[in-house]
Amino acid sequence: MKNKIITISREFGSGGFYIGELVAKHLGIPFYDRELIDRIAEESGLVKSYVERLSEYAPSKSIFAYSFVGRSVTGESIEDYIMNIQRKVILDVAAEGPCVIVGRSADYILRNHANVVNIFIQGDMEQKVQRVMELKGVSEEEAVRMIKDTDKKRSINYKYYTGQSWGDRKNYTLMINSTRIGMERAAEIIATLYG
Amino acid sequence: MKNKIITISREFGSGGFYIGELVAKHLGIPFYDRELIDRIAEESGLVKSYVERLSEYAPSKSIFAYSFVGRSVTGESIEDYIMNIQRKVILDVAAEGPCVIVGRSADYILRNHANVVNIFIQGDMEQKVQRVMELKGVSEEEAVRMIKDTDKKRSINYKYYTGQSWGDRKNYTLMINSTRIGMERAAEIIATLYG
Repeated sequence: MKNKIITISREFGSGGFYIGELVAKHLGIPFYDRELIDRIAEESGLVKSYVERLSEYAPSKSIFAYSFVGRSVTGESIEDYIMNIQRKVILDVAAEGPCVIVGRSADYILRNHANVVNIFIQGDMEQKVQRVMELKGVSEEEAVRMIKDTDKKRSINYKYYTGQSWGDRKNYTLMINSTRIGMERAAEIIATLYG
Repeated sequence: MKNKIITISREFGSGGFYIGELVAKHLGIPFYDRELIDRIAEESGLVKSYVERLSEYAPSKSIFAYSFVGRSVTGESIEDYIMNIQRKVILDVAAEGPCVIVGRSADYILRNHANVVNIFIQGDMEQKVQRVMELKGVSEEEAVRMIKDTDKKRSINYKYYTGQSWGDRKNYTLMINSTRIGMERAAEIIATLYG
């Protein structure tokens, strides 16, 4: 039996990152988010800030804009280059042992892995805005803009690299509204699926 | 505080009905499905078989076909007449005490009720087909047809009477894939939300 992996996709501001951390801590297994960036940067030879910006949000704006991005000497775009390394790194960490992976189309990348639980965390707009205002120290207007913008980019990225629709129920084992269920309880429920 | 209500929407063949029964039994609260039909039939003066056919599946085929259905003496269509009584019956049972209600747009009808948990049960196609073949004693081909047809009718009914999309994550507190999580465990998770 392959290592059990929990992937977490999440709306911006829904607390999916925090829930992922709680689950990993609760189960005593690694939590991959920043460490994925580090590994992708290392393998790609690119700086972390660049990898971070592109790894979930490429293609930059739209499929149209995507036609104009830079290309490596092999003719592969820089964005595709990063995405291919990201894919390899995610397959590597899944092979190393049980873990929690946040974002980065891990649900799709690990679709042929026997033992994966795919979680989607969503939240009510009002509470997401509140959370983003507190965590990022921004105005309400700015928080709304960040939420819409980030989710749109994640959605385009996911569609482009997987052909599937981000947030469509068919792709997930469990979808949780963290506003209504609570982040701690959401983490507990996810952890019970692990047994 | 209002009575706590659990609504369950479900794909045909996903075991949502069975899960709802398990949850109600586990919590010792009423489970409403057939009893809703009885009450609607009683209040409407229409026969049960007619109520059953229309209560989740009206308008019959499409919004277009809907223009041609019969109308009551008040000019209200029979289908709208049943849907209005259904709405009243669901509000009544929610006022009587905590309960589990399966289908019938109860999530939407109770949207202003403070204490509702809206669940959506889905499943993988192969397992849904298997379940329908066993429970209904039909061929694989017939099971596939029943699943697609029933879900399509539920989807049209929900859209028509709620303006929302059936199965869209925004409408639910928790969406569970019963194939991957298991029906007993799904029921346990739902019951834990009740506390």
